[in-house]
Amino acid sequence: MIDLDGDGIRARPAMRPPAAVVGMRLAEVDTPALLIDLDAFETNLRLMQQAIAGYNVQLRPHAKTHKCPTIALAQIALGAVGVCCQKVSEAEALVDGGVGDVLISNEVVGAAKVARVAALAQRARISICVDDPEQVVVLAAAMAQADPQSGLGDQATTLDVLVEIDVGAKRCGVAPGEPAVRLAQLVSQQPQLRFAGLQAYQGSAQHRRTVDERRAAIAAAAELAGHTRDLLQAAGIECPKITGGGTGTFLLEADSGIYNELQAGSYVFMDADYAANEWAGSGQPAFQQSLFVWTTVMSRTPGVRAVVDAGLKSSSVDSGLPTLADETPAKYVNVSDEHGVIALNGAPDYALGQKLKLIPGHCDPTVNMHDSFVCYRGDRVEAIWPITARGCAW
Amino acid sequence: MIDLDGDGIRARPAMRPPAAVVGMRLAEVDTPALLIDLDAFETNLRLMQQAIAGYNVQLRPHAKTHKCPTIALAQIALGAVGVCCQKVSEAEALVDGGVGDVLISNEVVGAAKVARVAALAQRARISICVDDPEQVVVLAAAMAQADPQSGLGDQATTLDVLVEIDVGAKRCGVAPGEPAVRLAQLVSQQPQLRFAGLQAYQGSAQHRRTVDERRAAIAAAAELAGHTRDLLQAAGIECPKITGGGTGTFLLEADSGIYNELQAGSYVFMDADYAANEWAGSGQPAFQQSLFVWTTVMSRTPGVRAVVDAGLKSSSVDSGLPTLADETPAKYVNVSDEHGVIALNGAPDYALGQKLKLIPGHCDPTVNMHDSFVCYRGDRVEAIWPITARGCAW
Repeated sequence: MIDLDGDGIRARPAMRPPAAVVGMRLAEVDTPALLIDLDAFETNLRLMQQAIAGYNVQLRPHAKTHKCPTIALAQIALGAVGVCCQKVSEAEALVDGGVGDVLISNEVVGAAKVARVAALAQRARISICVDDPEQVVVLAAAMAQADPQSGLGDQATTLDVLVEIDVGAKRCGVAPGEPAVRLAQLVSQQPQLRFAGLQAYQGSAQHRRTVDERRAAIAAAAELAGHTRDLLQAAGIECPKITGGGTGTFLLEADSGIYNELQAGSYVFMDADYAANEWAGSGQPAFQQSLFVWTTVMSRTPGVRAVVDAGLKSSSVDSGLPTLADETPAKYVNVSDEHGVIALNGAPDYALGQKLKLIPGHCDPTVNMHDSFVCYRGDRVEAIWPITARGCAW
Repeated sequence: MIDLDGDGIRARPAMRPPAAVVGMRLAEVDTPALLIDLDAFETNLRLMQQAIAGYNVQLRPHAKTHKCPTIALAQIALGAVGVCCQKVSEAEALVDGGVGDVLISNEVVGAAKVARVAALAQRARISICVDDPEQVVVLAAAMAQADPQSGLGDQATTLDVLVEIDVGAKRCGVAPGEPAVRLAQLVSQQPQLRFAGLQAYQGSAQHRRTVDERRAAIAAAAELAGHTRDLLQAAGIECPKITGGGTGTFLLEADSGIYNELQAGSYVFMDADYAANEWAGSGQPAFQQSLFVWTTVMSRTPGVRAVVDAGLKSSSVDSGLPTLADETPAKYVNVSDEHGVIALNGAPDYALGQKLKLIPGHCDPTVNMHDSFVCYRGDRVEAIWPITARGCAW
């Protein structure tokens, strides 16, 4: 009845309609889709700039959160000095998208990747972190080999290098103090590298639940960073920058008098894990949830549960399950690849086909699953922004 | 020094080299990358066909695991009757890639999606699940409206519809017994739909750790499915197919005498979560780990830990952290977006830049993060297979 000849089938083009188009009503957007509430998003960008206006700090938001040059350029237009990212391929996507100043806030290892960093430094202002002498030598050699004619200018370029110190996260970074000074000295000795300062990011502090825990963790980190800066100065090495901070703690770094650059990223979107932090007394701006996973009720057991079409391939569960954006006793209680089970807990039954907003447990890896943001205002789709650096992990 | 004029930068094309090319030595493949060990992969495909050869069952592997038409066609070439997937966009990608028989093993809700199912059914043999009368009516209307001239033939096409029953997973599905019979009767009354049987997938049984737990769960599921089939027959409704089963239990379904189609998917790759199941006495074939995340040591704290460049954006942690493929006391103990922390536990220090294979905690969502499989044999890259349906969640 149906001609299943393989060649015939293959010859037909893909005719997949997009999940959303500009001008569409939100209710018409197919699911799952990753939504940005533009009013909330724009509020968050303004709140951040207002919050740090009184401090001697610059904002360099982390683009690993959004992986989107459109958003990076919006942050820069509002006052950010540039953005951070974690991977070379992310930096390439951001520079390709028009971002002129990118800190790869991470160590980069391997000849192929380092050569790409050196090439990128011919095209934009690039900075990078090190925590091992071997990296310094390899980076300097790659910069020496990079062809300046491939760049925008004809003068020799340099790469800004930050020494990462471990201020309590127990991940990357040399020990603060003398080991950091020795590494900074090695960087300073390389003509193609410029020692730009210290990265002192206390990642594990961001999601400590109480304000006191976060305050204590950042006070300890700032003391270690300040001590290292003093040792550098005593050794005759200028330390122009101390960079770090995240959405959970950035006001503490700003207030420390030690940090002068902040890397917060999640504040543009927020998520359920940040919502679980205690904020009272922290001075934290009232960032709004702007990122949602749009999902449809696809199955129901009346009086008991509903099943939605967004599971762990649409909303990352590494930091907990998504939550329902609407006020309700119902709760998202179980997840599988493409299903989320909502226990009604006495809430009325959802309709089959009803669409709901979920708040992701963790914004960054959720964004990394999707190809575009469906940006809406009120009940209309206003823009579709490609997540250009999605999957850029190498 | 550097001209940071935005237009100048945007005008430059992206020059990102691929992480791997065919013929490259595995050691040269940049990281993170998703590897397939082709010898192990091919062994797994053969082992599955051998394992079910003595049973009255057909294999319809789940393509949500690999999202790759190349692999689906390899499975079909070895004897599979077609594949399953969960989403309409996955089905479209598979049909576009030459797969002629796809079961969407899931409910599909919403006018836009249902219209796509009807259109796809003009191009390939499509089947789908229902668990609500409303879906049946909408599917029938969409099939009536679909233009048969858009298909490969000029005859009216039908859509195969399976009634999903809940056999213990507490997710989708109507109750077994009379509710399923009533829904099957409704399907049978629609001229554009063909009642194709029951889906009785016991998803929650797949990762129960002991053989006895899995056996009890599938025995209960098979009894419910068999009872429903008997009621259908008593009502004069033929039930040609009972489909279900996964990598954790497929021999139990095969041996039940009730199921005649198996949906196992993960067996092609395996993962750390399946490795944690007890298999002794189950008769399970010795499926080999064929899927790995290739990662580089990017930072070291000698004697204590190493940090690798594959975090939770490269290997899904929903079912546990990745494990190290090599025999070692070292252990992957902590994860963040783009970092994995390996505690040495007395193992010798890794070298900076050393590459390691990780076994993902859960294969399906890990695959969904990557754009291609780097397929190797021995120490050479033999193929790059695009993960065509990556991100196809809608």
